[in-house]
Amino acid sequence: MRLRKNLEKITPYIAGKLKKGAIKLASNENPLGSSPKALQNIKEYLDRIHIYPDAQCTTLKEKLAEKYGVTEDMLIIGNGSDEILLFVAGAYIEPGRNAVTSVATFSEYTFATNLFGGSMKYGEMTDLRFDLNNILHLLDEQTQVIYIANPNNPTGTYVTQSELMHFIGNVPDYMLIVIDEAYVEFVTEDDFPDTLPLIKKHENILVLRTFSKMYGLAGLRVGYGIGSPKVISDLHKTKEPFNVNSIAQVAAIGAIGDHEFVNKTLQVTRTGKEYLYNEFDKMHLEYWKSAANFVLVRIGMDAQEAFKILMDRGVTIRPLPVLNYTDTIRVTVGTREQNELFIRLLKELLEK
Amino acid sequence: MRLRKNLEKITPYIAGKLKKGAIKLASNENPLGSSPKALQNIKEYLDRIHIYPDAQCTTLKEKLAEKYGVTEDMLIIGNGSDEILLFVAGAYIEPGRNAVTSVATFSEYTFATNLFGGSMKYGEMTDLRFDLNNILHLLDEQTQVIYIANPNNPTGTYVTQSELMHFIGNVPDYMLIVIDEAYVEFVTEDDFPDTLPLIKKHENILVLRTFSKMYGLAGLRVGYGIGSPKVISDLHKTKEPFNVNSIAQVAAIGAIGDHEFVNKTLQVTRTGKEYLYNEFDKMHLEYWKSAANFVLVRIGMDAQEAFKILMDRGVTIRPLPVLNYTDTIRVTVGTREQNELFIRLLKELLEK
Repeated sequence: MRLRKNLEKITPYIAGKLKKGAIKLASNENPLGSSPKALQNIKEYLDRIHIYPDAQCTTLKEKLAEKYGVTEDMLIIGNGSDEILLFVAGAYIEPGRNAVTSVATFSEYTFATNLFGGSMKYGEMTDLRFDLNNILHLLDEQTQVIYIANPNNPTGTYVTQSELMHFIGNVPDYMLIVIDEAYVEFVTEDDFPDTLPLIKKHENILVLRTFSKMYGLAGLRVGYGIGSPKVISDLHKTKEPFNVNSIAQVAAIGAIGDHEFVNKTLQVTRTGKEYLYNEFDKMHLEYWKSAANFVLVRIGMDAQEAFKILMDRGVTIRPLPVLNYTDTIRVTVGTREQNELFIRLLKELLEK
Repeated sequence: MRLRKNLEKITPYIAGKLKKGAIKLASNENPLGSSPKALQNIKEYLDRIHIYPDAQCTTLKEKLAEKYGVTEDMLIIGNGSDEILLFVAGAYIEPGRNAVTSVATFSEYTFATNLFGGSMKYGEMTDLRFDLNNILHLLDEQTQVIYIANPNNPTGTYVTQSELMHFIGNVPDYMLIVIDEAYVEFVTEDDFPDTLPLIKKHENILVLRTFSKMYGLAGLRVGYGIGSPKVISDLHKTKEPFNVNSIAQVAAIGAIGDHEFVNKTLQVTRTGKEYLYNEFDKMHLEYWKSAANFVLVRIGMDAQEAFKILMDRGVTIRPLPVLNYTDTIRVTVGTREQNELFIRLLKELLEK
């Protein structure tokens, strides 16, 4: 078999084996579980899982259209928003073309770009934030897509409304700007961009969101893109009919209206972040204020080593070297009990 | 946005709107519903759907490896076997390369090939069966993949063990032969190929199977490929980590061992096919003996028109023009009651 040359450099993602019983603060999952309204919808649907899913995700699109005040032809649903990254690359990337993003961001932007034979260029960050000016300097004739994670994973930092507006004004119309807002529901910062009005004004903006984090449906795989009818139509050309499983569709339909669960989750996340910041301050650890449901912190020891010891003692975090740091870990904000356990174990680890 | 040129000819799949309440014999779903063991596993897992799925599908692979007597590095799991077609094209197809299949088969082979910039060539059929000699004649230096649906959808016909053995002996080693066995669990014919021993002998064979049909899990999207460690490793390079949702994984794990459900389904399918054949004979309709859970039949009137009228009266079938026929419909074998309703409505339609 003649593997395509551009795949030779790709190594398959191997998820680490996590210790059973250890509390998982490694994947930014919702510590409160899943939206009860999502669970209710699933239970009521179980007698129909032998039927193929709705290829158009009709009802889910109706609900999202209503929520955001957009038309249904401005929406596309994916098997997680990860899959929408494949749609984007499938539509616009081919050998000779390129995409641009920042260093220290979500790795799937590069994966999708490489899969379709394109190359990725990386702008440097400033203070561990996306620096959109650095990205502007990298655009060239063959740039088709720009990926901005906002808030960014794994740093938790974000670009502001005014930074984004300036950027959009300087990007050629034919380049698609993908704004990945997987964590947007956790954001409380006032100067965070309001992208929905931008989508209606600019044909070349695609916003990605997900039910994985805030709504607690990471296991079911359902994310979505909001963009102009032109972009959404392009993306649909690359989509297989039955990509979104039916349980995920009904769960998401239930979750959308579950304001009680969203409010509880927000409360737990805000309180938990304040607690972590406070403890990190007391321990004199450097961290980055996060607009999302996780915090990146420098612990002053090798992150991989810390990961193994912490897991062994009862909590898993994500060792995530960014830039030149080898001592950065990303910890998901958990319940009060989970956060306290993490801090206790971290203290024990760093004190010895 | 500069859509890739090869996508301009692709029109997104639009599933037809089906009438609510009409019995669905259109998508080869299991008329008995889903495996009860699958449902049980789902119910027990619902408190964990906020957690990301197992990216390696560890337990499901263990169960499949045990079932088939293969090693786990010979297995890949997809979001439906449809997704594995994308892995295949992603690994081996690019502009300038081609794939070969037959006319009158599953359309996703072409979709996946075109998505990665390759072209598809089609061998003619003989008696509405894959003619492997015709396919052999189409192979050239740039052919990377050959797709054989066995049994074929929508004809229900199959290639035999001896035909397949002769074919494999004449295909160059570097071309991947994908044998799509989505309906294999329904096959009772003695001369149907036994592909598992072939996989162990030939590095270039990939067999695809699914939990959608026999196990009644079409809504959840879980299919798998069995092939050599070399091919499976190539395919994993194109796979996103969290492609298979966790509910699908636990459902499939339950379904594998559900022999009672499989036996019941086989019984209903066999009896139903005999009934349909018998009624078609009495009505003097031409049909093709099917090794799967559906039958293709010529009804002597426009298939699209028949589809609309039948749906309006209470049953949906699939109008599927094959070759030059415009009067062929594909009907899924249902329960006794469903089959009888279909025959009654078909008689009324054709008699007037």
